[in-house]
Amino acid sequence: MNHKMLEKYASVLVEIGANIREGDCVQVHGDTEALPLVREVVRACWKVGARDVITRLTDNEIALAKYEEAKTEDLDYFPAFEADYRESMMKDRYHLIRVSAPSLDLFAHIEQSRIQCVQKAAMVATEHLDKYMDSGEIKWVVAAYPSVRWAKAVYPDLPEEEALKTLWDIVFSICRIDTDDPVAAWKAHDSELKTREIWLDDQNFEYLHFEGPGTDLICHLAHHHKWIGGSSVTPDGVAYIANIPTEEIFTTPNAMKVDGIIRSTKPLSVMGKIIEDFGFTFENGKVVDFYAGKNAEVLETLFGMDEGARRLGEVALVPDSSPVSRSGMLFKTTLFDENASCHFALGNAYAEAVRGGAHMTEAERKALGSNKSMIHVDFMVGGPELDITGYLKDGKAVPVLRDGEWAF
Amino acid sequence: MNHKMLEKYASVLVEIGANIREGDCVQVHGDTEALPLVREVVRACWKVGARDVITRLTDNEIALAKYEEAKTEDLDYFPAFEADYRESMMKDRYHLIRVSAPSLDLFAHIEQSRIQCVQKAAMVATEHLDKYMDSGEIKWVVAAYPSVRWAKAVYPDLPEEEALKTLWDIVFSICRIDTDDPVAAWKAHDSELKTREIWLDDQNFEYLHFEGPGTDLICHLAHHHKWIGGSSVTPDGVAYIANIPTEEIFTTPNAMKVDGIIRSTKPLSVMGKIIEDFGFTFENGKVVDFYAGKNAEVLETLFGMDEGARRLGEVALVPDSSPVSRSGMLFKTTLFDENASCHFALGNAYAEAVRGGAHMTEAERKALGSNKSMIHVDFMVGGPELDITGYLKDGKAVPVLRDGEWAF
Repeated sequence: MNHKMLEKYASVLVEIGANIREGDCVQVHGDTEALPLVREVVRACWKVGARDVITRLTDNEIALAKYEEAKTEDLDYFPAFEADYRESMMKDRYHLIRVSAPSLDLFAHIEQSRIQCVQKAAMVATEHLDKYMDSGEIKWVVAAYPSVRWAKAVYPDLPEEEALKTLWDIVFSICRIDTDDPVAAWKAHDSELKTREIWLDDQNFEYLHFEGPGTDLICHLAHHHKWIGGSSVTPDGVAYIANIPTEEIFTTPNAMKVDGIIRSTKPLSVMGKIIEDFGFTFENGKVVDFYAGKNAEVLETLFGMDEGARRLGEVALVPDSSPVSRSGMLFKTTLFDENASCHFALGNAYAEAVRGGAHMTEAERKALGSNKSMIHVDFMVGGPELDITGYLKDGKAVPVLRDGEWAF
Repeated sequence: MNHKMLEKYASVLVEIGANIREGDCVQVHGDTEALPLVREVVRACWKVGARDVITRLTDNEIALAKYEEAKTEDLDYFPAFEADYRESMMKDRYHLIRVSAPSLDLFAHIEQSRIQCVQKAAMVATEHLDKYMDSGEIKWVVAAYPSVRWAKAVYPDLPEEEALKTLWDIVFSICRIDTDDPVAAWKAHDSELKTREIWLDDQNFEYLHFEGPGTDLICHLAHHHKWIGGSSVTPDGVAYIANIPTEEIFTTPNAMKVDGIIRSTKPLSVMGKIIEDFGFTFENGKVVDFYAGKNAEVLETLFGMDEGARRLGEVALVPDSSPVSRSGMLFKTTLFDENASCHFALGNAYAEAVRGGAHMTEAERKALGSNKSMIHVDFMVGGPELDITGYLKDGKAVPVLRDGEWAF
């Protein structure tokens, strides 16, 4: 693809995403398939005057070799020095830019328990590092790279080259890279999201009522919940946008007060498998029943990760007319698909999505209803038939979404 | 290229090179251009039962971005945690397999002082790690991958695909990958090298006299010098071969007692530049004069690295009929070219190339004549016109090489 476009993509990640400033240190994580963009990102970091840039390249095929070949008793081996190294970068404020190439179903043939074993060991060893990103001390952004594997998964009927070009074009469009001045376009978009965020915060809803096909759910919000859309801000006041693209405005559900049924409206890619046609029944915040047309056992594995895996950690609103939704595509990768649709996440809540949360202990956040888990897995519930109604403290109903679109 | 051949290449690196055993931990370092082989190496490590495999991928283009774009005052920034991380792997005995794709003249346009600044900072920060490899505690091997860039540099007149295929074929041949049983072929070759090693050790030469076109050099050997060819051995008795390919038998010169003139017989690639038609004058072990037809200033920079950069750290013997030499090619990368030719290295001596050296202090080794430096740069002096004569303690002359071939 066009080199000029790659440079523009990199400039959005560096200047708008992680918002790297002169003197910043940066860690750039990238999949090998994303190397052309990773190279431009590193160069762009140096160009804005970074003090240091550490690049950590990972490879999906190398991950696969471990899943396929390692002895079972070694799967959960995660050396302490690896976690120490990662924490050192956080402590020294190496801001994080991650460019991933979705692995999709590369791991589909691997026994579920082997993947869980590897991923759980890594999560247990590194979960204490979340606080550096939760608190905003580390500016960060994640983005995705249209690899051949991804393009083939999204356009299985097109010839490889055409599939790749089509995916690139749509990613450039959704990520506002195809505008004359992508950095300016992102600033304007961020300002729109902030307007919605402020309105939602002003309502201070007690709970949201979700209604749609297969869905009738009452979701209470955490005490002191904070809506967040677009940019986050570091303690010293620097704005960064942690996801490119982002169309969502999200907050923290009360993990103990969610009741009813919810039907997912899109397939979910998790642990290398695609789960389809699934839904959950919640009681007192906990998934007490679930169904899936395909790969139901992955949900079972997911719920087995820890206590918090069966509860909600995020509720996010996205109008059905978002650019990702308008594309009509299923991207099979959460970073994009979550921006097509209202969604929830099973698992961990974001500390910053309750007021003052970044400076609270885990117990303090939990007391507000904020969930704790090693996992954070988004699933989509939005669509043109979804209505959401907010209920104020005094019981008054306020339309939030009607037929999938903003109602305010 | 043929996947089966890549697997055989990987098996030589894992089973003969680093000799990975069940339960070993491994660090695999690789350039992104070498990814297909890196993947096979990682898989082969798991297959022999490695406990852990950490892969560290580097990219020449990303290195270039730093050289081109970083602010001058940031070039020598090397965070302490990075050295700590690398030392942790050494302490935990992560054996090392490195697959490099030569960068050749990718950095040719970069100001010499910028490259020196980056490389020196890294060397200063990590030189205390050499001891883990010197002592044999870490089994290690380095190998090279025929990248497009390398193939084009070696065969500039061939079409790209043909150049690449030709280079692969010759690398497979030189590395004995094209034999039915490469592991067995390497065991036989190692045994031949050991026979030469034992003969040379038995002589216990006082000094070697090098004679050839532009060359007339007396090179004393370090006290208690030890000749090494082929495999090294860990303290617990496991053999490994640190270079694939390897044809040399080397030992430690006395860094204070080298006198005369020496003319290099091949170009030298160092710090991204190719130095051609060069030679040195030694007095009391030190380079007191030098010349070069091209890039002489790189030698100047090299000598400025530290005190030991002007003295010899290695003398290595290779018959002119070695497979690399017979190929008649200039590979423009030391790992291959050093095996075509007798050579010296400027800079650091190998601790294990004096008897008991791995357990001595630096001062003890120095007292024997073993050189200390941050650099270790091989330059070629062999060819069909080179004679080497060894002189015993009693003054008796013993032919070692005549017309470039073994004379014993």
